[in-house]
Order: sequence, then structure tokens, then C-alpha cells
Amino acid sequence: MPEAFTAAAIQHACTDDPDVNLEASMTGIEQAAAQGARLAVLPELHRTRYFCQTEDTRAFDLAETIPGDTTEQLGDLAAELEMVIVASVFEQAGNGVFHNTAVILDNDGRIAGRYRKMHVPQDPGFEEKFYFTPGQEAFRPVPTRIGKLGVMVCWDQWFPEAARLMALAGADVLVYPSAIGWDVNDDEDEQSRQFDAWQTVQRGHAVANHLPLIACNRTGFERSPDELDPGIAFWGGSFICGAQGEILAEGDDREAVLSAELDFSHTEQLRRIWPFFRDRRVDSYQDLLELHREEQQ
Amino acid sequence: MPEAFTAAAIQHACTDDPDVNLEASMTGIEQAAAQGARLAVLPELHRTRYFCQTEDTRAFDLAETIPGDTTEQLGDLAAELEMVIVASVFEQAGNGVFHNTAVILDNDGRIAGRYRKMHVPQDPGFEEKFYFTPGQEAFRPVPTRIGKLGVMVCWDQWFPEAARLMALAGADVLVYPSAIGWDVNDDEDEQSRQFDAWQTVQRGHAVANHLPLIACNRTGFERSPDELDPGIAFWGGSFICGAQGEILAEGDDREAVLSAELDFSHTEQLRRIWPFFRDRRVDSYQDLLELHREEQQ
Repeated sequence: MPEAFTAAAIQHACTDDPDVNLEASMTGIEQAAAQGARLAVLPELHRTRYFCQTEDTRAFDLAETIPGDTTEQLGDLAAELEMVIVASVFEQAGNGVFHNTAVILDNDGRIAGRYRKMHVPQDPGFEEKFYFTPGQEAFRPVPTRIGKLGVMVCWDQWFPEAARLMALAGADVLVYPSAIGWDVNDDEDEQSRQFDAWQTVQRGHAVANHLPLIACNRTGFERSPDELDPGIAFWGGSFICGAQGEILAEGDDREAVLSAELDFSHTEQLRRIWPFFRDRRVDSYQDLLELHREEQQ
Repeated sequence: MPEAFTAAAIQHACTDDPDVNLEASMTGIEQAAAQGARLAVLPELHRTRYFCQTEDTRAFDLAETIPGDTTEQLGDLAAELEMVIVASVFEQAGNGVFHNTAVILDNDGRIAGRYRKMHVPQDPGFEEKFYFTPGQEAFRPVPTRIGKLGVMVCWDQWFPEAARLMALAGADVLVYPSAIGWDVNDDEDEQSRQFDAWQTVQRGHAVANHLPLIACNRTGFERSPDELDPGIAFWGGSFICGAQGEILAEGDDREAVLSAELDFSHTEQLRRIWPFFRDRRVDSYQDLLELHREEQQ
């Protein structure tokens, strides 16, 4: 079991200037270090504006390699502050192959591992299937010097299967860099239901798997390049919850560095008295491998 | 898509007298009918006290067959009120084979189907593995004249796999008869976390599957036959939520008939604009059929 440590979510807005954005990320990480954090999580695609609002071939210019400029700069900071950093990169992996990738920088600055977003959304304003090839690796936590991080990315957060596979493979904590927001044409009640649904389904993963969870979302309004489109109001709302889904730290729609202590002994206590993993009916789960179950005859 | 209808959860306490308990159930169902409900859900094992606090061979005397006295009386009421009723029976299925079974009575009084609890708990005060053989059928919704009911039972509610399989097989609503409560030795903070975890994980199933959900829990304190045991304070807290996990009706620890309208067009709207089912990575879910994933070499 890892030792307890403080984790932080760096919730910030993004501009058109990648260097300004990286500066915002790094300033937040330094603040997190000052709060005693040993793990810092950045929002999804924090280096750039959310370019997936439209399908634009010019946006591929924003992609980088791993290792590359972002991982080098953040790796140096990770080593300097002795912190683990979960970053997010628009990764060019090969000719015509791009991924939406979380990179985990260990607290000595080395790249501990990466996770290429497995579930990729495609809906108006979130045109990600145009840009990103879905990841091909299974859901495996990344070992670091402070614990095994079950890192996934945004749309993954709606899928209980993904969280479960991370837990089965030994994740100590679930981590979701995210970029989700409101269509400003939706009314306040609908916006409120969407935010609550987003937080609730993730807290549900924490509960079902006895794991603490960190969700770090970007914030700020970003206009769409398409004049006819209303743009996206990224809702912030980053949070850290414990292994019973209890909220430990939570943001609103302002920029913030949120931190909380992760207590892994809590997970161990829950595993003993609420033994969900003892009772999984793996003999009856076969149809989870289907997209749709046919009617039984 | 089914038509919208009102559903009700009949939250009541149980005594040592099975006939008094059935009377409480039937009175609640009549109240639900007066509220316009076309579906009534009863708590788990509502006919009896929660006999699983200890392992006692005499408790097998409480078992009945299906069909049997409970399904006959409730079937008559279902036909009279033209309501679908989800009941719960300690079922004797064969010699030495007993199940914790939900029975679905259609609104013409016939038995529409049954569900034998698949995930069976065993922990201090909830000694269910002593009494119940786990169900052997896959997770299939029960077709009724008002819709397909994804009925599961209590401990099942902690397992995202079960809810997902019901959704994949076409369930219109998730339904959980339940008997869960507090160890009175736990402090208030722990009790609060447990209740919130229970509600949150189920609301998460609603969100992940775009389905409304009804959880009906028993309430009231029941002493343990074991003098050294503190007994269980069943926490009530039955609730009905919509397809974004939004609470539509919710009880506290008092007896109550809770009702709310289920709007199935909401499910259809969500399926179109939050298309989780389009993007499930069934190519990468194979290890959900394992109890534990080995380290990757």
C-alpha cells in the first residue's frame, strides 16, 4: 500500500498561446508544491485552446512528440519539485497517427508512462474522432515512485468498465484530466444536471472500486472558430474524492489549485468489510464484450 | 420506447409477523395506486424480518415457493389495481436450494418473471451466503406490459457490470429492492459516508446507462437474535432518479410511499447526444472476465 500523500488538481483556463498556457500550468504546479502536494494533475490538452470545437487540418500543427517540449519542461519541473505530474499532450505518434495522451512524469523527471485516450468522443463542438486515433493498449495503471496511477482521459470517465479494469490491475488512485463544458444554449437546469451527472458517475467509480479519484477539468469560455457556434463554457468543477466517493476538495468555475490528502489505508479498510471484488460474477459477465445483447430466445 | 408512467417505492419496516408485513406492503401499494403509480417496488425480503443477521437453520421455515402465498396475494392485488409489482421472496427452489428472489407481477396479475440475486453478500450481520445460492441466470430485464424492468437485488447495486448488462439487454429502468442499514457502532460521519456511497454508486449506474432507477430499501431498527450484536438500523433512503442521476423522489428513515414519473424520452435524448454505447471498447474489455489482472510483463 502506498503512503498517504497530498494530491492536487491544477484547474486553469487556456489561451491561444501554448507558452502562456504552459506557464499557467507550471505556476499552478508550484502552488501545489507549496501546499505540500506530491502529485499534480493538469487538465486535458492544457497546452492549447480546445481545438476540437471544429475539424480544422491546421490544428495538427499543435501536436508534439513524446518526449517533446512539453514533457521536457514539465519533467524538469517534476524533478526540481520532486513531484509526480500528470500532463496531457496532443501526441503525434507517427505519420497521420495522433493521440490524446496523458503523460505521467515521475518525481525524478523521467517519463513513467503514458495513456492514450481509449474512448474518444465525437459530438457537436467535441470533434475528437477527427483528430485522435483511439488508444490500443489495455487499461493499465502507470507505476510511479509514489503509487500506481490509473490515469484515463475525459470521455473515459463515463465508462465504468475502464475504471474497473484499472482497479483490477492494481491502480491506487483513478485520475482523469478532462475538458468538458456547457453548450451555452442549454438552460441552467440542464447545465446543472450535466455537471452533477459528470461528478456523480466518477464518484460512483470511486465507490465501486474503493479508490480515491482526482478529476481535473479546464475552465473558462472558449469561442468557437465557427461563428455560428456558441462556443463552450468549460465548467471547471475539478474535484478530489475519497474511496467512498466523499468529496475532499472541489472547485467552481474559477481557476484554482485544489489539494487533498489521499489515504490509501481507507481503501484497504473498505476492501475488507465491503468486499465487492470477492463477489464479482465473472462467470456471467461475458456479454460485457458485446455492443448490444440480443434478445434471449 | 415505453410511455411515461409513475413509479413508486414502498419503504416500510418489517416485524416478526409475515402477515403484518404483507399487510404493510399491500397498504403501501394501494397508496401508490392512489398516487397514480403503475409500478410499485417493495423492499428486499419484505415479508419477514431480516433473518440473515445470524446463521440459523430455523430461518429456512420462512422460505416459500414461487408461485406461492406471497405471489398469489400480490398477484391478485396487481390485477385489481392494474399495477406492476416488484416483490421479493425468500424462495425455496428445490431441496436445499434457496434463493433471494425478486418476482415481477404484471398488471394482469400473472408472474412476468423473476430474478435470483446474483451477487450475494456475506459479512457480519449480513450472513446471506449461508442462506442463498447465487442466481445462475444472466442479467436479463423482465418484459412487462409497461416496459422492460432491469430488476436486481441489494448487493447487486454496487456492481456496475450488472447494471450495464441489464442496459445492454434493453432494460427501460433499473430496479433495486434492498435491505441495507447501519451498524449502530459506526459513528455518524461513517454512517453518512456509507449512505452517500450507496446512493451515489446507483445514481452513477443511471448516468452511465441513461436509465431511470428505483431503489427501495427497508427501514426500521431490527435487533439481532445474537445478544452480543448491536442489530441493524435499516437506513431507508429509498429514491427514484432520472437518466442523468437526478433525484426525483427521496425518503429519509421513516416509512413512506415515494413516487415520481419516469420519462423514457429523456433516455432517448441522452442516447443521441451523450452516445456512450457507441464508444464502448469491447475489444479491450476482456479482463472484466477476470477476478484479478496479473501484472503485465
